[in-house]
Amino acid sequence: MDLPSTTLTQAVEALAGLPGVGRRTALRLALHLLKEPSAEVLNLSESLRRLATDIHFCRICHCVSDGEVCPICSSPKRNPAIVCVVENVQDVMAIENTQQYTGLYHVLGGVISPIDGVGIRDLNIESLLQRVKTGDPAPVEEVILALPTTMEGDTTNFYLNKQLQPLGVKVTMIARGVSIGDNLEYTDEITLGRSILNRVPFEA
Amino acid sequence: MDLPSTTLTQAVEALAGLPGVGRRTALRLALHLLKEPSAEVLNLSESLRRLATDIHFCRICHCVSDGEVCPICSSPKRNPAIVCVVENVQDVMAIENTQQYTGLYHVLGGVISPIDGVGIRDLNIESLLQRVKTGDPAPVEEVILALPTTMEGDTTNFYLNKQLQPLGVKVTMIARGVSIGDNLEYTDEITLGRSILNRVPFEA
Repeated sequence: MDLPSTTLTQAVEALAGLPGVGRRTALRLALHLLKEPSAEVLNLSESLRRLATDIHFCRICHCVSDGEVCPICSSPKRNPAIVCVVENVQDVMAIENTQQYTGLYHVLGGVISPIDGVGIRDLNIESLLQRVKTGDPAPVEEVILALPTTMEGDTTNFYLNKQLQPLGVKVTMIARGVSIGDNLEYTDEITLGRSILNRVPFEA
Repeated sequence: MDLPSTTLTQAVEALAGLPGVGRRTALRLALHLLKEPSAEVLNLSESLRRLATDIHFCRICHCVSDGEVCPICSSPKRNPAIVCVVENVQDVMAIENTQQYTGLYHVLGGVISPIDGVGIRDLNIESLLQRVKTGDPAPVEEVILALPTTMEGDTTNFYLNKQLQPLGVKVTMIARGVSIGDNLEYTDEITLGRSILNRVPFEA
């Protein structure tokens, strides 16, 4: 598709590099932006520029951060003895949204997946083990594995547990079972079977 | 959702302003950009900035353009006596892609649609009539109506025809009928019915 403007062509090509955005969607986005007030477009442009230049990853938990250490790791209200291991930044936010967790995080940056070529060295595993071994910045008493309940997540859980157990830290994992609000009739067999095997004392 | 970085939050909010992009998709896009080389993100940012500052609309046909007059209107290879009226810039590109048209265009910027609050004054109709009346920048012999084959498109066609006929210009519209490659069995009744009524002499 030949566009009658090189400025537009370049914008379409750049937008088409976004995941899930093809050339047709990119053109629709670009033409939408043409109709917007230019202040809004400049704001978007500037926000993206800062994304490239101003953002850091926390040196402790590898979550996104404005500074060297993220607000969660530097908060005095959080319990640094508990570290929750998650796949990515989205998962940190999902757990933060529950408002049920007051410990710290460790973002692996993925899960072990030989099919996708993701090995142990591609993940932030060594820094997790160092955090537990050295007790720096704070001694760790418990590591919660909160990885996806997939084959790759389970593989990573298994590997992490094997590495963490010898360090004398308590290793736990998030509960798996029937989702709250779900009918048993529509719950998949594996989840339902495990939720019966892993039943817990009644709580009111 | 509280993000642990204000830079990221601002980028997500700006991206969520795009059509069809909610906060979740905006977060996914922003986190994708975080993983990209910063040169690519800066390129995207810069392309969008130029979209706000460098783009113009052709003063003759209202299509997007780098300069005051678009490459189509200023091309000596195009026939300025034929003007094709289309709804938007995408339609110019769709017709250009057919490589079957050598005249000029006139982008209305929409079609008459009282439900959406789009009236005659919101569209580039007056400038089309002026183009035909004054013969500036070139005398117009034929106006091809190539608006969508919807109720709104038909209403606009009807209005334009009524305005154009008294000016002594030939008014035509694009052919409607069975799509090429379609089976008659799956063609909707209205299209098939009209294609029989509007049959044309056989051409080999």
